[in-house]
Amino acid sequence: MSGGRRAGLERALRAAIATGRLAPGATLPSTRALALELGFSRGTVSAAYDQLTAEGYLTAVPGWATRVAQAAHPPPTWRDGLTSAGSTSAGSASNPAVRRANAFPGDHGNFAHDLLPGRPDLSTFPSAAWLRSTRRVLTTAPPEVHALGDPRGRPELREALAGYLGRARGVHAGPARIVITSGYAQSLGLLAAVLAEAGTITVAMEEPGHPLHRGTVRHAGLGVVPLRVDDLGARTEALDQAGAAVLTPAHQYPCGATLHPDRRRAFTAWARETGATIIEDDYDGEFRFDRQPVGALQGTAPDHVVYAGTASKTLAPALRLAWLVLPERLLEPVIEAKRVADAHTQSLGQLVLADLIGGHAYDRHVRASRLRYRRRRDLLVGTLRDRAPHVRVQGIAAGLHALVLLPDDGPGEDEIVRRAAALGLALMPLRDHWQNPSGRPQGLIIGYSTPPGSAYPGALDALCTVLA
Amino acid sequence: MSGGRRAGLERALRAAIATGRLAPGATLPSTRALALELGFSRGTVSAAYDQLTAEGYLTAVPGWATRVAQAAHPPPTWRDGLTSAGSTSAGSASNPAVRRANAFPGDHGNFAHDLLPGRPDLSTFPSAAWLRSTRRVLTTAPPEVHALGDPRGRPELREALAGYLGRARGVHAGPARIVITSGYAQSLGLLAAVLAEAGTITVAMEEPGHPLHRGTVRHAGLGVVPLRVDDLGARTEALDQAGAAVLTPAHQYPCGATLHPDRRRAFTAWARETGATIIEDDYDGEFRFDRQPVGALQGTAPDHVVYAGTASKTLAPALRLAWLVLPERLLEPVIEAKRVADAHTQSLGQLVLADLIGGHAYDRHVRASRLRYRRRRDLLVGTLRDRAPHVRVQGIAAGLHALVLLPDDGPGEDEIVRRAAALGLALMPLRDHWQNPSGRPQGLIIGYSTPPGSAYPGALDALCTVLA
Repeated sequence: MSGGRRAGLERALRAAIATGRLAPGATLPSTRALALELGFSRGTVSAAYDQLTAEGYLTAVPGWATRVAQAAHPPPTWRDGLTSAGSTSAGSASNPAVRRANAFPGDHGNFAHDLLPGRPDLSTFPSAAWLRSTRRVLTTAPPEVHALGDPRGRPELREALAGYLGRARGVHAGPARIVITSGYAQSLGLLAAVLAEAGTITVAMEEPGHPLHRGTVRHAGLGVVPLRVDDLGARTEALDQAGAAVLTPAHQYPCGATLHPDRRRAFTAWARETGATIIEDDYDGEFRFDRQPVGALQGTAPDHVVYAGTASKTLAPALRLAWLVLPERLLEPVIEAKRVADAHTQSLGQLVLADLIGGHAYDRHVRASRLRYRRRRDLLVGTLRDRAPHVRVQGIAAGLHALVLLPDDGPGEDEIVRRAAALGLALMPLRDHWQNPSGRPQGLIIGYSTPPGSAYPGALDALCTVLA
Repeated sequence: MSGGRRAGLERALRAAIATGRLAPGATLPSTRALALELGFSRGTVSAAYDQLTAEGYLTAVPGWATRVAQAAHPPPTWRDGLTSAGSTSAGSASNPAVRRANAFPGDHGNFAHDLLPGRPDLSTFPSAAWLRSTRRVLTTAPPEVHALGDPRGRPELREALAGYLGRARGVHAGPARIVITSGYAQSLGLLAAVLAEAGTITVAMEEPGHPLHRGTVRHAGLGVVPLRVDDLGARTEALDQAGAAVLTPAHQYPCGATLHPDRRRAFTAWARETGATIIEDDYDGEFRFDRQPVGALQGTAPDHVVYAGTASKTLAPALRLAWLVLPERLLEPVIEAKRVADAHTQSLGQLVLADLIGGHAYDRHVRASRLRYRRRRDLLVGTLRDRAPHVRVQGIAAGLHALVLLPDDGPGEDEIVRRAAALGLALMPLRDHWQNPSGRPQGLIIGYSTPPGSAYPGALDALCTVLA
């Protein structure tokens, strides 16, 4: 009888593996657990596992779990998630959606050197502090924190952010007006949907600006009016065609200007007079190197400006933690949109971030990062001055990226990006940041925060080689 | 000069507190940090803090951080997030969106006893195992895991789920066909948007069913056709009016039937013949008490059925972790919708869950929970048989809730819910689960998993008191 059970179990396991029900790498239950579950003896289950291991269906490491053998499929690695090669099915490695989804801000995975913009040095992620705060939260918080809660997010984080944003960015924020979101893309998507629902037709957005953000606004059915950018930040001429504007006042992306005080006043006056909404994308407002940062625009017109912040540049993009500080009139529809989208952002990350802010670990990390990126920017500027004096670094001493403009009489950005790729260096051309690229300058957006510190000099050397 | 600096700092702090820039409870930087930042002496900053503490603007606990005094506002607590009282601004305590957002599945916070459905016993959340896995992930994973990645989610979790779902639920799942989402509400919202975009007009949904889920489908612009439910699960008559169907085959919510094999065949035949999509909401498929659970419908028609699972019932709703297993034709549009919505679900929670599944802690927790909820259901059935023999418990021995039908000749559900509230017991009436409530039975959805174990007998006693 045991022989019949064993054979039956073996057949069932072979079939499950052959049809993919049990995927390569899947962990099997312990022999004890499976025996209990099936009402078999443990010896019967062990014998079946041994047989299938001998046949190559399973792999067993003594003292460790039994798994389905990887067969022809290589196991996924940590790195695979970054590229469409992360798929273990041939079907979707050629999936254009997956490729497109990873095509911007760029595949950070396949190059020896990486100066693509959009992320901090992830090797400095404060893992020890995050783990300490996680332990504190999990050991002290009552079970209720694991229940569904307020769509705005955890009160602990909204309270901590209200204080932090007031102190660090001059934001006029009460916890009740803050909505925690799962990243700036979600923040902008929720706002665009709410504005469209309320009758907004077109949104003014900086030209050049982030192409993904334009896509998010268009996805809500809104038109995009380009706002040309000069050395004083976004210009205001095209505003009369728009019902809302998205701005990066502290550090224009990608050109790097700070919005001039006259322009700040012009934008807020426009919003007050027309009832328009300004969305202030303060994506790297913490990182001003040469002086105290200019306070958030929101602080001067909190009833007309939505402040949008994120932990993506201060901690890590994959945390998917961001926040909105909202004028009263937008609060209710944004809360409702957030509730419908995903109930609320996951709680544990919010509680950990609140603990990091409350215990000053967040401030310490931001200060250390500011010093680190300031040095990197200085090294970029100094090195290019020496080794590629024909290029021009544009923008203020701030943030995680610099715009490098190429001379008219040399190779253009496509040629430079090709040369760089041949050297194993990933670079971001300006190209896609224009809605209407005619007459635009040629340039590269250099993300000097991207490599780990030890790799930065090598990346810079490769950059100088392709620019020389 | 130090006196002038001190006075200036005091003025700036008073103004920041008065205008709300520094919110009640906000933590101030240490005197050392602020002195460094401003280029003042530490003594100057200390003196300013002391002065404002004396004036009542700040509170200082020796050896601890200085904070902005709470003034008239009570500090928020862990519990506040569950109710609109979590707001520290009077403005939004009366905000109808906030109240509405918390009105269902019910305010778990204000009652001594809580038998509302929709969540597991949160006091059993495996905090120690979660913390161990978090440590393992943070100490072994390379920095790249903190970068933006595949919109489908981490390959580690998709790989672990492919194995787990095949083993536990008979789901035919390769990791490439899995998309991790931020909860079932997001899963259903993404699918509804993709179906609407592809031309679907109406979706068949169970009657009775979850009102929030109907709302999510309608929010995408789709119509909802009710599918009447009987003892064999959802009926099929109304299918010819629909282009898609949402089903709870393992354990119909809220009636508790398992979809009969003939109905399963009829639904999948309909999908094959008409090209319709079935969304299988397997919300509590792990919790069958009396026998092996029926395998997922998806396993019999993987090209026509979307399998939707969640960690909300096995671990906790506030994790906001769920998953879809998709037919090839829906994969690309759902990936794109997910990317636009929020790039991808936060990575750390995914990696921790993958580690819990790989190390069998997840299976162990599910098994322990199954035993716990089985005992609770048995106690509910036995106690009601003894103390309220006129009510009828409907549905199979499974899940986290039971439907209790009230006799026609006694008080209706509204009266029972009122009586219960007066006793401090939160109960969910059937009412809102019908799209068309005419002729419906009167009943209560009893969430026997909701209270901590020690509170369950008291909640049951209160239930018997109001039903007697």
